[in-house]
Amino acid sequence: MINYPNKKNSQNVKLTTSANRGMNFESMINRTNEFYRDNDIAIIYKKPIPIQVVNVDYKSRAAARITEAYYKLPSTTDYNGVYKGKYIDFEAKETKSKTSFPIKNIHEHQIIHLNRSRLHGGISFIIVYFSSLEKIYLLDSEKVDFFYKRSKTGKKSISLDEFDKNGCYIKEGYRKPVDYLRVIDEYYL
Amino acid sequence: MINYPNKKNSQNVKLTTSANRGMNFESMINRTNEFYRDNDIAIIYKKPIPIQVVNVDYKSRAAARITEAYYKLPSTTDYNGVYKGKYIDFEAKETKSKTSFPIKNIHEHQIIHLNRSRLHGGISFIIVYFSSLEKIYLLDSEKVDFFYKRSKTGKKSISLDEFDKNGCYIKEGYRKPVDYLRVIDEYYL
Repeated sequence: MINYPNKKNSQNVKLTTSANRGMNFESMINRTNEFYRDNDIAIIYKKPIPIQVVNVDYKSRAAARITEAYYKLPSTTDYNGVYKGKYIDFEAKETKSKTSFPIKNIHEHQIIHLNRSRLHGGISFIIVYFSSLEKIYLLDSEKVDFFYKRSKTGKKSISLDEFDKNGCYIKEGYRKPVDYLRVIDEYYL
Repeated sequence: MINYPNKKNSQNVKLTTSANRGMNFESMINRTNEFYRDNDIAIIYKKPIPIQVVNVDYKSRAAARITEAYYKLPSTTDYNGVYKGKYIDFEAKETKSKTSFPIKNIHEHQIIHLNRSRLHGGISFIIVYFSSLEKIYLLDSEKVDFFYKRSKTGKKSISLDEFDKNGCYIKEGYRKPVDYLRVIDEYYL
């Protein structure tokens, strides 16, 4: 993609006026969850990144220092918790594309986990942020599964148009940057 | 505590015949959750240990090596997931004591998290393993909160007798070492 000077400028202007400028999508979700917790709306957390610890230096007992460790593949999604008695489980992804979201951005075991969560009575979904467009969509895990299966023999991505038709648009905000529970209220509860 | 030779011997014999000999309590819980997942009973995972990564060596892109990191205090409990549409949240603890469980083994923010999970409609509790007695109890978060508050001015621990009266006994097993969902079925659902 070529960055035309004019286009770049106009984007910069947009970013400067955006309430969440400089924030990556993960921070936006985390801030939203914090708002939910602080206002006693829901208890949803991001799981820690799984790390395989190989060596620890115990010289100072108070602050054991890990000196060798490796990132592990997560076996589940990043976020889960409880809202109005319902189990909530989701994965959040960001793409710079202006046209579609590549399915390969979600691991197969995450799709399996989302499906299982739904089949056991939870509400599970992905949230995708088209950062260049500043558009956020929630897509139910059943639809995610459909597009995932399609990608095995056909299209390897979910188009923006398909998000418009199958997903729920989430309006970006300031205090709740990604107010996905409003969508949950509207479409699930 | 003094280890009388006779006593020690008899304990060794007991451990040798135990189905779960050599397993610590965490492994027993993890194996149980694996059984639940493999048999499509519930989707419950242990959360990764939160680690603050300070330095990463990217020399080999395939296996980024963390060279400096520290353990962080967890903000939630260790285990959560979904069972029959219900949000499940708990902390598992082990004690060698034969008489009581010290409250200080649970962090205050974990008590708060268990309370919040319950108030938002989840099922939250602690599971305590009296390893010397090979006895396992499940105690609802409301009771945990009661004993926690009591510890501020009074007794700093929960006695075995109090577990007997307020908790639910979990029978140790082989395929499901700590079958806590049987207790959930019986007392919650």
